[in-house]
Amino acid sequence: MASTNPARGMRDFLPADIRKRNYVIGIIKEVYESYGFEPLETPAVENIETLTGKYGEEGNQLIYKILKRGDKLAESAKLAESPESDDSANSVNSLADLALRYDLTVPLARVVANNKNDLPKFFKRYQIQPVWRADRPAKGRFREFYQCDVDSIGSRSMLVEVELISAVGDILTKLGFDDFIIRVNHRGILGGILRMRGVDETRFAEALTSIDKLDKIGEKGVIDELVTKGIAKSTATEILESFRIMHTIYATMITSDKLHNLVWWMGDKPFLVGVLKNAREEFIGSPEALEGIDHLLEIARPLDSVDVGKHIKFDFTLARGLSYYTGTIMEINVPDLAGSLGGGGRYDGLIGMFGKEQIPACGFSLGLERILVVMEERGMFPPEIAESTPADVMVTIWNGETIDESLTLANELRKQGLRVTLYPEPDKLGKQMKYADSIKVPYVCVLGESEIADGTVTLKNMKSGEQETVVRSEIGGKINVA
Amino acid sequence: MASTNPARGMRDFLPADIRKRNYVIGIIKEVYESYGFEPLETPAVENIETLTGKYGEEGNQLIYKILKRGDKLAESAKLAESPESDDSANSVNSLADLALRYDLTVPLARVVANNKNDLPKFFKRYQIQPVWRADRPAKGRFREFYQCDVDSIGSRSMLVEVELISAVGDILTKLGFDDFIIRVNHRGILGGILRMRGVDETRFAEALTSIDKLDKIGEKGVIDELVTKGIAKSTATEILESFRIMHTIYATMITSDKLHNLVWWMGDKPFLVGVLKNAREEFIGSPEALEGIDHLLEIARPLDSVDVGKHIKFDFTLARGLSYYTGTIMEINVPDLAGSLGGGGRYDGLIGMFGKEQIPACGFSLGLERILVVMEERGMFPPEIAESTPADVMVTIWNGETIDESLTLANELRKQGLRVTLYPEPDKLGKQMKYADSIKVPYVCVLGESEIADGTVTLKNMKSGEQETVVRSEIGGKINVA
Repeated sequence: MASTNPARGMRDFLPADIRKRNYVIGIIKEVYESYGFEPLETPAVENIETLTGKYGEEGNQLIYKILKRGDKLAESAKLAESPESDDSANSVNSLADLALRYDLTVPLARVVANNKNDLPKFFKRYQIQPVWRADRPAKGRFREFYQCDVDSIGSRSMLVEVELISAVGDILTKLGFDDFIIRVNHRGILGGILRMRGVDETRFAEALTSIDKLDKIGEKGVIDELVTKGIAKSTATEILESFRIMHTIYATMITSDKLHNLVWWMGDKPFLVGVLKNAREEFIGSPEALEGIDHLLEIARPLDSVDVGKHIKFDFTLARGLSYYTGTIMEINVPDLAGSLGGGGRYDGLIGMFGKEQIPACGFSLGLERILVVMEERGMFPPEIAESTPADVMVTIWNGETIDESLTLANELRKQGLRVTLYPEPDKLGKQMKYADSIKVPYVCVLGESEIADGTVTLKNMKSGEQETVVRSEIGGKINVA
Repeated sequence: MASTNPARGMRDFLPADIRKRNYVIGIIKEVYESYGFEPLETPAVENIETLTGKYGEEGNQLIYKILKRGDKLAESAKLAESPESDDSANSVNSLADLALRYDLTVPLARVVANNKNDLPKFFKRYQIQPVWRADRPAKGRFREFYQCDVDSIGSRSMLVEVELISAVGDILTKLGFDDFIIRVNHRGILGGILRMRGVDETRFAEALTSIDKLDKIGEKGVIDELVTKGIAKSTATEILESFRIMHTIYATMITSDKLHNLVWWMGDKPFLVGVLKNAREEFIGSPEALEGIDHLLEIARPLDSVDVGKHIKFDFTLARGLSYYTGTIMEINVPDLAGSLGGGGRYDGLIGMFGKEQIPACGFSLGLERILVVMEERGMFPPEIAESTPADVMVTIWNGETIDESLTLANELRKQGLRVTLYPEPDKLGKQMKYADSIKVPYVCVLGESEIADGTVTLKNMKSGEQETVVRSEIGGKINVA
């Protein structure tokens, strides 16, 4: 007998789960649409070439690959078995021609390149769909999970970043979060620091992964990791020194003693702007870092005009793992979650990988599962979601002869706007009541022979236990009023 | 450069597509919920053993299989390459451990078996998710498509069938269909005919596939196919004779001259009941056929009580391809579509394949894509869906100095309940207007220096071209009233 569990790292969502998920998704959609973002959906399955080479080496390993079919499979299998074939891994890879969606950004880039002439000059889209990663399952880490992405295509203006941050902030606020922090940094600043310290560009991605852990493993931890990755200890120390200098500029203006607190509140904009301007001096030799600082200044300027302003921090140690980011990078955190609720950034080079034209783009991705985990732990769901029931009322079946009457009544009640479940077979009334109780339906309509004769029902309030005789046409009003 | 097309047989859905899809899905959800069905979702990816052996040989071939990963893949690949390995197909199959969801019924059966103690005694669920089949793409046939399933678990009562047919009928009626036919038959009748004519049970599935084509390829075509499948010509002729006898009973009661018209309208229930009762005489030797007829009589009886009654036909030649059906089978057709809009049936044996207990079940599956195709061709979408726009109003940017003001205004307008898109960068006003026109936004707010000073905007109606000066707090009212 086959196992009845879902596949490892995957989950079934029972009705109570779905209602919570749909509640959150509903708010996300509503806010994205209030900003003029439009819905897009792409297939779960992509050609394998679309995905490979977009997520870095580690990402590549986590892509689910789909076996070729029919003749093509037989052909590739023969090739793989022949003694002249390449190494085993390569020949095995030739067995797959398709792969499962790994994120929503690469498919978007493909769609934009493919539909350039049909899309508006500035294309603002949101997309809420599952992605699949063959990662080791862990607490809160699944192999199928939903991303809720929002992206603006076609403009290099930092107003795009401001609008994305604002939309994401509005969503979290509407969901009831008030303690989230959106950290912002720029790849140009990180790249400038690394390049000024002589790190080769091919090592940037690896180095950034380590720097990203500064608040988890500390300065010494980061230096050790960088050394393991082949960066000279002196260089690694110098890199951390750069962050220290940025910190010193900061520290001369405000009291703070920990490098990992190199985080600036937006609450005091003139202060922030001052710090960025002082930091500028440090990066005179690095055009990319200077551009990064100027971009952050542009983002800082209008943040007073959006509600999300007070949730923004600039954090020079924020790195983000994905390799396609080219400018601003962003990440959302709450105190009681180790990972992030979402993140994003600017990727001006990705769409060009699919078309002739470089088209600038910037986006944000919210992790549905993590938002749900925190909301569940904090009890943030409104009661109508947390305690929802499958129906407003259940109609009973008196006996085999009155089935038609019960069907007719259920039909009438639906037309009165109620969600009505019908007990599916003639049964003892006690059993029917027990079932109604088990599905937590708030009202039951008992339709016996005398009620049928009278054109009434006996309406039972399952919470209070009260019963009353009600004319059929008035049941909807009774239940909705209650 | 990678191709920018979606994978073969798969589709990207641009915003206008999604709005139409969501409109239909919204009505489907609303009606299912009005019947007390609850939402369920299962993973796209299942363990391969969960799916194999459930859909017949042809179905098995169409399942997308996912390559094992890491060490497990290397191990299986080594095995596949060794000269002692089994035949090539088998060794290739051992390379996959997961597969993509092929329908929503088998995953439901798995979930029910897995959550037996947490689910109510009668579990009524709906599920709207994509499925994947490696079929040859054709007009209207895709490799990724959505199914909208509704199933009732736990009761053998024919009231379940009536409720499912009624719910599906309500959906089609709400979408604006008035000419759909829901054909109903019973596997017991088909099985009875085949068994009485000496066909071996192992051939039933194949034979039914041919009989299902009676209205497409005619009597002779069906006999020829049955012969190709190894059934003696005399037997094949006798099988068709059985349908002819059913037809004769029917013909003695009403004028009709074509076998493929062996379809009985529900409009005249006493007539239908009479036909079924006469047909009963023909099946005295077959308990399974008699049970089938009795079940259809039970379904016929209360159909007067539901709105869908006049859309029902009983059709003894309806077979349905899937092998897991055990009782009633159902299919929806409209005149202008060759395939069906949906179908379903009773599958009392499927859940038992996953658990210790046989749990009766019956369901219906609507094909979203086919519904959309017909609605598109017939122009059935309401104007607010067919002509929807990404936003109610666009806010312009006057120049680099007024970005904050435009952001603030957009924020205010959202709080007035509007969907607001902000032009993303300072630009010539003409260009901004051209863009507004291209995305078909009905209103534009121009916010120049004088307007900022006055606390007003210039509101332009993009359809009429009219402009007026409006106080900021009154814009929402203006646009909503219009």
